[in-house]
Amino acid sequence: MSKPVNIAILGATGAVGTELLKLLESRNFPLNSLKLLASPRSAGSKLTFKGETLEVKEVKANSFSNIDLVLASAGSSVSKVWAKTITNAGAVMIDNSSAFRLDPDVPLIIPEINPKSLIGHNKIIANPNCTTILMAMVIYPLHKIKPIKRIVVSTYQSVSGAGTQAMEEMKQQFKNIFNDKKPEAKILPYPLAFNLFLHDSKMTDTGYCEEEMKMVNETRKIFNEPDLKVTATCVRVPVLRAHSESINLEFDEPFPINKAREAILQTSGIQLCENWQKNHFPMPVDASNHDDVLVGRIRQDISHPCGLELWICGDQILKGAALNAVQIAELLINKNY
Amino acid sequence: MSKPVNIAILGATGAVGTELLKLLESRNFPLNSLKLLASPRSAGSKLTFKGETLEVKEVKANSFSNIDLVLASAGSSVSKVWAKTITNAGAVMIDNSSAFRLDPDVPLIIPEINPKSLIGHNKIIANPNCTTILMAMVIYPLHKIKPIKRIVVSTYQSVSGAGTQAMEEMKQQFKNIFNDKKPEAKILPYPLAFNLFLHDSKMTDTGYCEEEMKMVNETRKIFNEPDLKVTATCVRVPVLRAHSESINLEFDEPFPINKAREAILQTSGIQLCENWQKNHFPMPVDASNHDDVLVGRIRQDISHPCGLELWICGDQILKGAALNAVQIAELLINKNY
Repeated sequence: MSKPVNIAILGATGAVGTELLKLLESRNFPLNSLKLLASPRSAGSKLTFKGETLEVKEVKANSFSNIDLVLASAGSSVSKVWAKTITNAGAVMIDNSSAFRLDPDVPLIIPEINPKSLIGHNKIIANPNCTTILMAMVIYPLHKIKPIKRIVVSTYQSVSGAGTQAMEEMKQQFKNIFNDKKPEAKILPYPLAFNLFLHDSKMTDTGYCEEEMKMVNETRKIFNEPDLKVTATCVRVPVLRAHSESINLEFDEPFPINKAREAILQTSGIQLCENWQKNHFPMPVDASNHDDVLVGRIRQDISHPCGLELWICGDQILKGAALNAVQIAELLINKNY
Repeated sequence: MSKPVNIAILGATGAVGTELLKLLESRNFPLNSLKLLASPRSAGSKLTFKGETLEVKEVKANSFSNIDLVLASAGSSVSKVWAKTITNAGAVMIDNSSAFRLDPDVPLIIPEINPKSLIGHNKIIANPNCTTILMAMVIYPLHKIKPIKRIVVSTYQSVSGAGTQAMEEMKQQFKNIFNDKKPEAKILPYPLAFNLFLHDSKMTDTGYCEEEMKMVNETRKIFNEPDLKVTATCVRVPVLRAHSESINLEFDEPFPINKAREAILQTSGIQLCENWQKNHFPMPVDASNHDDVLVGRIRQDISHPCGLELWICGDQILKGAALNAVQIAELLINKNY
């Protein structure tokens, strides 16, 4: 792909879409043109890019002519509907949905981890699930040193993962409670204000929900470790936009903490955040609006001789979605993949 | 101990103290007299019991004469100061603090689990840590069937565990944010509104905080399993009064899910809460103000042939503190220990 490029954002008005726009601006992305697309419901909205007002257009069959790259973030069903149209028009699609992530013909990319899996792509590239990206960013540098045998992870996922409307609904729920009214849940499955619940994605027959199985299957694919043992419990918490994760790792032999810290300090995209005196470790408010995933409270697991405990927080909309997608786009352009 | 008894509540105005008062009333506890005690700061407050207004008195050296039983819930340092005075006065102390929990001469009791450890007590009986009680209630019935080999637990702890003032502070933080003001943290270590953080109890040299070590050491003592392997990550979340826990259990052999469900259904004090069709599992709002600990989403761990995943929620102030203490008192009286 030669630069500068003609880009379309599909799902421009969503939580991830608006962040994509900001990143293309702040990272000075080599753009020739930018087209904003959305469903008929959101078409007509106006968004600002580099001081100019752009109108969001309804996505149509001819929307992708002369487009080089589509950043799609309008959900799985929308991606499935438009994928063929996009690639037939000659464009490459970086898809933020789960539609094609496990398709063996589709690379699932975290630029810091498996950039070379992009080589020979078939015009669809998948952006991994947000909780998976954040976890993978932190544990891959350790996995390279000593292979991880098993992962037990519990998540603390912000409401942003359920979209802009869910964020607004949760805020309204708090306001209702403070005004002695009942908190209403229309977008979210249950009230989230002063509450939390297991992730409400579709249940699979193993008793794991789809979000949890994404952490299992996508981590395996990104690491190219089809037999990696992973168990996950995904939980939605009343936090606005950064996800946290409590991660227990098992190795075949002990992993010295200092070696883990060293590996983290040497890896770009993650940041060690540990102040043991002040009991200050990663928090969602610190991770929000930050590119790096924060990691801290690294401990030798006292229940397992070869175990490590980690605590991470990362911006779900940035590295968990929009930033990773833009980094994939940059990789395509800079490496001419 | 013969009934009816003369009771004193030490720390009557706190989150647990006020709940103790309600429980003595609602459970029709065999009371002869009730004395409410607190620090000089809280003395003078008025509380209602069975329609009568009782004044909270300042705790003094002569406060415990003619008292049979003291329910202490004013923190560890207060318990340490008054324990000898209480027992020298001839009263039994049920202590909600961590002061004596690991003392080998002090029984650490969950009435449903180890009631017989009360026999031969030396007038001080410890009420376990809240997260420990809630977890132990659910996993002990399984442990009796097949011994648990290892526990990996991550908690989602409500602000009530930090006390009444912390609850009010968190609400105020939300209100501040909605009014474009900064959330202030004076009681809590960091703002908790739309945020969460690792439990801020004192750090130990293993890298585990004291709250986490309570889950390790108290579970071992209650189960009488000094070598039980436990690792815990304790997290404070913006929820008002019920704690949640993501629990991963390892056994020596596979534990069939149906057998686990059956054991839970047959155990009093815990309740199976699973609606797989509606994706409805335990939530803090459902567990709040309920005596039973809720458990659900029981799954065979896909990362371990002998693993089980559980999700629980329980009222931190009730079974996690006040209810368990009152149940210990009832046991003392009814069994004449």
